[in-house]
Amino acid sequence: MAETVKVLQKVGELFGHSFTFKDYKVGGAAWAATEAAGETPSHLPQTTLEGCETSDAILFGSVGGPVDKQHEPQWKDCEKNALLGLRKRFKLAVNLRPSKVYPFLSHLCPLKPSIIGTGVDMVIIRELVGGIYFGEHKREGDKAFDVMEYTVEGIKKPMIFAFEAARLRRKKVTVVDKANVLECSRLWREVARDVHKNYPDVELDFMYIDNACMQVIQKPSFFDVVATGNMFGDILSDAASVLPGSLGLMPSASLGDGLHMYEPSGGSAPDIAGKGVANPIAQILSGAMMLRYSFQLEKEAAAIENACETVLRSGKLTGDLLEESQRSNAVSTSDIGEAVVKAL
Amino acid sequence: MAETVKVLQKVGELFGHSFTFKDYKVGGAAWAATEAAGETPSHLPQTTLEGCETSDAILFGSVGGPVDKQHEPQWKDCEKNALLGLRKRFKLAVNLRPSKVYPFLSHLCPLKPSIIGTGVDMVIIRELVGGIYFGEHKREGDKAFDVMEYTVEGIKKPMIFAFEAARLRRKKVTVVDKANVLECSRLWREVARDVHKNYPDVELDFMYIDNACMQVIQKPSFFDVVATGNMFGDILSDAASVLPGSLGLMPSASLGDGLHMYEPSGGSAPDIAGKGVANPIAQILSGAMMLRYSFQLEKEAAAIENACETVLRSGKLTGDLLEESQRSNAVSTSDIGEAVVKAL
Ligand SMILES: CC(C)[C@H](C(=O)O)[C@@H](O)C(=O)O
Ligand SMILES: CC(C)[C@H](C(=O)O)[C@@H](O)C(=O)O
Repeated sequence: MAETVKVLQKVGELFGHSFTFKDYKVGGAAWAATEAAGETPSHLPQTTLEGCETSDAILFGSVGGPVDKQHEPQWKDCEKNALLGLRKRFKLAVNLRPSKVYPFLSHLCPLKPSIIGTGVDMVIIRELVGGIYFGEHKREGDKAFDVMEYTVEGIKKPMIFAFEAARLRRKKVTVVDKANVLECSRLWREVARDVHKNYPDVELDFMYIDNACMQVIQKPSFFDVVATGNMFGDILSDAASVLPGSLGLMPSASLGDGLHMYEPSGGSAPDIAGKGVANPIAQILSGAMMLRYSFQLEKEAAAIENACETVLRSGKLTGDLLEESQRSNAVSTSDIGEAVVKAL
Repeated sequence: MAETVKVLQKVGELFGHSFTFKDYKVGGAAWAATEAAGETPSHLPQTTLEGCETSDAILFGSVGGPVDKQHEPQWKDCEKNALLGLRKRFKLAVNLRPSKVYPFLSHLCPLKPSIIGTGVDMVIIRELVGGIYFGEHKREGDKAFDVMEYTVEGIKKPMIFAFEAARLRRKKVTVVDKANVLECSRLWREVARDVHKNYPDVELDFMYIDNACMQVIQKPSFFDVVATGNMFGDILSDAASVLPGSLGLMPSASLGDGLHMYEPSGGSAPDIAGKGVANPIAQILSGAMMLRYSFQLEKEAAAIENACETVLRSGKLTGDLLEESQRSNAVSTSDIGEAVVKAL
């Protein structure tokens, strides 16, 4: 996050904007702070929510604790409580996550070159405040229930966003669902066909989630824009997120009604936390997305994206982007931040 | 299917068994036949269900029509109606689908050699008659609902099977779920921990479905036995099914209370139907699974598996197992069937 702030400040200087940053704790850090202050411990304290509310955008770090401490109250459900809480509170209904294999980093993609083919460049648009995540969850004796639910309104928002996004790209929307089984998916298809009427220049097709997970491995170049529900989007975007070669490369945006949130696609990496070796690119690119979607600073966003690409191309790379044998050449988190500032 | 019957008959000859085969129609073929006979058209006619009922095992071909005819009544929902109907009727609660990269065919795996690493050899145990597939599906005005539900009993069956399977393998069960969101998943974890008590020699771990889909691409050698629900199993087993390099390689079994069903992991391939070029290996291996699980003929099952491996190793391959440039060397479906018979 420190590198991202540096980069944003530099962009402010260069383009004549000034950004005001305020820090609020979330996740395990918030838990510890609220506990120390004698408050009810929380992964998403009231002060943080209020801080977000009075801001123009949320730039989110990563939350999640050490693997071996997941059962301690400080870390238990910390990611879920923080993320679902923010999504719900700020109605962050439309999540977008790109997955792109940079040609000059394609050797890092787990897929064979013949599979990468003409390249991988997709955006997954995931509905983020509905579906089985926010339906009823219930235990009754020996039985458990979870309810998936969708309304036409709830589907329309991400769907319209997907068609708009496709217009600026390769003009293809693939709706991913399980319409042979789920009523919710059948409703998704109806809404998709309906919204499609306003976008005759965009191609629309449908794919079952099981097939989509196959195609991400077998023929990822097929996808341009994917529109899908909360659960399937969670699964598919995580599958797609490994294609670039490192979770440290891809940003994400979660759009609400006015207030939006930006965060790296990957979660925290507790094993390397604080060592100064994490790849800051995904966080920096999340900052670029913030400039684009919250502040309509398209030129500035593109400048950051180009600067990141320049740095990656130059071969200045953190360890996650290097083969094991090359890892002694890794540069630090702040080296990358500084290189991006310089490239700007 | 014709090749599989040949192979089973040969095994009968060699080992002194006689198998009685009866054919019943299902899917689009059943629809056409019932319609022609002036009955209510059906993808799963009563005669077929009765035929299954009076048999000792169901060896299932593949169903599904041409891509461009999915909206015609003969093909619409044909796979779903056939499969879900059979699963429900015969309570086929435990689905097992192996995914194995044959070292001598590893060049067909979409993953890079460095990712395949020490090899891929997993079995996915999927609960098959519960979950969101068989809960209520409902439309109310602008809203749609689907209910995921699980009982302890419903989870126990596949779970016990998974631990038993792991004992005969690398002794590791990974339960795949979304326990940070779903009550059903939390029940799965409870049952898993409970069943685990009887299998102290087997290692148990838990993984979220989103992470599991990443690991299938990034580190598939991690998995030994996976135990999971209906929906997540559908998704994960399809993702894993592309690793061997062709859908034509892997069999599957769906176990009920006494009567079990066996079928290739992939669906039908309408584009090549009737051309005599389909790979029969998955169907033949499904026959082997039938011998193992329905007839306790372990030696005979292993003989078929070894014969298939011998044929594959020999380089006699159908087109799906050949790189584009080599495809003129492809042998036919019946060539493979005969080669397996000979290898036996
Ligand atoms: C932490 C978890 C609840 C969350 C989700 O499933 O949405 C995460 O996996 C994500 O994708 O942001
Ligand atoms: C046809 C469909 C209903 C079925 C499923 O989702 O179970 C299929 O995808 C499978 O995996 O056998």
